[in-house]
Formats: sequence, structure tokens, C-alpha cells
Amino acid sequence: MAKFYGVGVGPGDRKLLTLKAVEILNKVDVVLAPSKGEGSIAYFIAKPYIKGEVVFLDFPMTYDTKRLKDKWEENAEKIRELLMGGKDVAFITIGDPMIYSTYIYLLRELEGFEIETIPGISSYSAAAASFNLPIAEGRQNFAVVSSDDPEEIEKILELFDTVVLMKVSRNYDTIIKLLKDKGFVGNLAIKCGHEDEKKTRNLEEFIGKKLDYLSLIIAKKEK
Amino acid sequence: MAKFYGVGVGPGDRKLLTLKAVEILNKVDVVLAPSKGEGSIAYFIAKPYIKGEVVFLDFPMTYDTKRLKDKWEENAEKIRELLMGGKDVAFITIGDPMIYSTYIYLLRELEGFEIETIPGISSYSAAAASFNLPIAEGRQNFAVVSSDDPEEIEKILELFDTVVLMKVSRNYDTIIKLLKDKGFVGNLAIKCGHEDEKKTRNLEEFIGKKLDYLSLIIAKKEK
Repeated sequence: MAKFYGVGVGPGDRKLLTLKAVEILNKVDVVLAPSKGEGSIAYFIAKPYIKGEVVFLDFPMTYDTKRLKDKWEENAEKIRELLMGGKDVAFITIGDPMIYSTYIYLLRELEGFEIETIPGISSYSAAAASFNLPIAEGRQNFAVVSSDDPEEIEKILELFDTVVLMKVSRNYDTIIKLLKDKGFVGNLAIKCGHEDEKKTRNLEEFIGKKLDYLSLIIAKKEK
Repeated sequence: MAKFYGVGVGPGDRKLLTLKAVEILNKVDVVLAPSKGEGSIAYFIAKPYIKGEVVFLDFPMTYDTKRLKDKWEENAEKIRELLMGGKDVAFITIGDPMIYSTYIYLLRELEGFEIETIPGISSYSAAAASFNLPIAEGRQNFAVVSSDDPEEIEKILELFDTVVLMKVSRNYDTIIKLLKDKGFVGNLAIKCGHEDEKKTRNLEEFIGKKLDYLSLIIAKKEK
């Protein structure tokens, strides 16, 4: 039976692919990449390692859940057809497939097929490394936050000394205010691992400005 | 000037090293590996990719912070000598160097030297992939917990739907009780990515038993 792979290609630097990811991209019959947004970045990263056919899947950039769901079902159906036809298929995703990836929806739609997930370097691991900034040590805990509910974020900032805030472009100004109120210092990474990456500890600089979608903050409580 | 690298070699599967980690292990003059515990696992993983000299560092397996600190300072001094002698040096660590790694102590001791950290696949990313178990999607948050304070763990379980519990061998029975009380289902991964890895959703099976140090739980709140 043919196999479906979910392959994490890391945050942007091609050298942050794992040996296993390269092996899978080399050997599968078909590599699937979303044609727009994050998916197209995944394709850009993975491109030099792909040997087989590339099929682009169209995903609407929308928060309309009904439209999204229909499109995902349509895409899953395409994948089922490829697998039933005996083709090994890999879906590529930036970062780690199990952390905020569209691959998660496909996983559910493809239950019953043989599936293997290849973990990838997450954007916040890469950002921490690039800042030489420890995330947690010893018996410390940390939280990774994608919520845009200020009350929820506030509660989390009260309970942790290290908080990773993902995709902060959606609610940047609110987050900066919350961090300040709760005594946190932030490290902002924009497009970490990409050629045009930016890193700064001066978070005020970006208030009121349009941030790239791939922006995250590693925040540390000031002692 | 010589350079100090912190290289994450991932959780255990040699194919989960990044291309970058392999490149660094190939090119540095000296690779440093702790001679006992987790460090020796890091050496076992990295071994086939090392071209230069290997120096084993002795670290006491103790919670005596004074003894630990003295030993770390002694080890940092050895590294300084190598760097001052013009040698590029890589310290290897399992998982990701910025998440619960002994590398973090060295980072602080070596301030002023040129340092580059190479991120690695964390144990929980590998475990999630191996379970085909999503950690978080959309606007969900998650917490990574290394605390052994039951009250603190309880508060975290009240605030998150996904909680990763690291190194659960220290307080396994307490954690299992807390998860049950708070309506969580756990996925236990022991030595994930190693040849003798074990995975189970039957957490009760290990109550009262000695668990390997490299054991973690990905817990999900039951809906």
C-alpha cells in the first residue's frame, strides 16, 4: 500500500531540514505543496531536494470555515486518489507538522491510510537558537501561545516566565502592551531563517506597522 | 577567532539530525560530549558524523548545585582554552539546545566568544510525529512542563487543552493522578526515536514502575 508522509521542512533555512526529510523528498512519487501563502514558502525551502512530481494544492486564504472545509475535503480527495493509485505522497509544511500546520487537517481526512509524520525544526526553536536565547532549563515551564484573546494571554503571562507568542502580526500592539504590563522583555523574530530575516529586542519599533505573517516573540519575565 | 557551536542532535534517530548539524560535526576541530547520562546518548547519535577529535567532559550526576557549578566552570575553562588555541569547538546535546539542555549553562560561561547555536528536533516534536498526534492548531495554545510542583502543574492543566510533560520519571504517579483528575488523556513516549522506544496510551501500566529518564507525556484534554 502506498504511504502518505507529512514532512516538516523547518522555518526557512534549507540546512535546517533533517536527513530524514531529505530522504523522503528524494524518494516519494509526488510532493504536494500549497500554491499560496506559507505552503509556497515550504515549496521554496524543499525545492532542491524534490525528485518526483510536484502537485500544487489550492487553499483559500480565508477565515470562512465552510469554504475552508470544502476545499480541504477536495484536496484530501485528490490525495486519496493518488494513494489508491499506488503513489507515495509527501505533503510539505514549514516548521513542525504537529505545531500549527495545515497538515493536521489532512491527517484527519486521511484516517485509514498508512501515514508517517516527519518532525521539523519549529520556528521558535530556530529563533531561540538565532538569539542564543534559552527557552527553558531545569524545572522551568514554558507556554506557546497562538490565542488572540487578551484575557487568556494575560493569564498565561501570570503563570510562566517564558512565553512564546506565535503569529504576532494579527494583534501586535495588544501583545506589546500586555508584555509591558506584566514585566516581560520580548525578542521579536521576523521570518527567522529566511534571507531577509529581522531580529530585534526593540519591540516598540514595530507598533502600528504591518508585520510579516511569520513573526514571533520569545518573551522572558524580567527578574 | 575560533567559534563555539551548540549543536542539537535531536531525540535519538540519527536521521533526525539537520543538514546543518551534520555540516558542523564534519568541520569542527573538536566535538565535546558529556561522558555520562544524556550527553553520552548525544555522542552515540552524533558519532557517525564526527570527523575531528572527541573530548569527553565529566559532569557529576547530582542535584548538589555547588558541585555542579564548580564542574561547569571547570568544563567552561577547558572550552575557553580550546577556543583561545584557535580550535573550532562543538558541544553536542540531545533534542534542542535551547530547551532543557546543559548547553545553556555553557552559553553563559562563554560570553564574549563567537557562539552559534544549531537548533535540533525536540523530543516532544518527535513524539507527537510518531503518535501522529497534533500538538496545537489554529489559535490553540500549549504548555511544556518540567516542574515537579503538583499545584503548579494543576494550574497549567486548568489553562491549556494540550500539555507536554517532560521527564515524567521523577514524579510519574503524581502526574497520572493529576491528569485523571483534570480530564486529560495522556500519550506516553519512552526513549522516542531510539531503537528501544516504547509508546502507549495506557498510562496506568507504568504506575509504581521505574521509568527511563527520557520519558514524556503529551496530554490532551478530553472533550
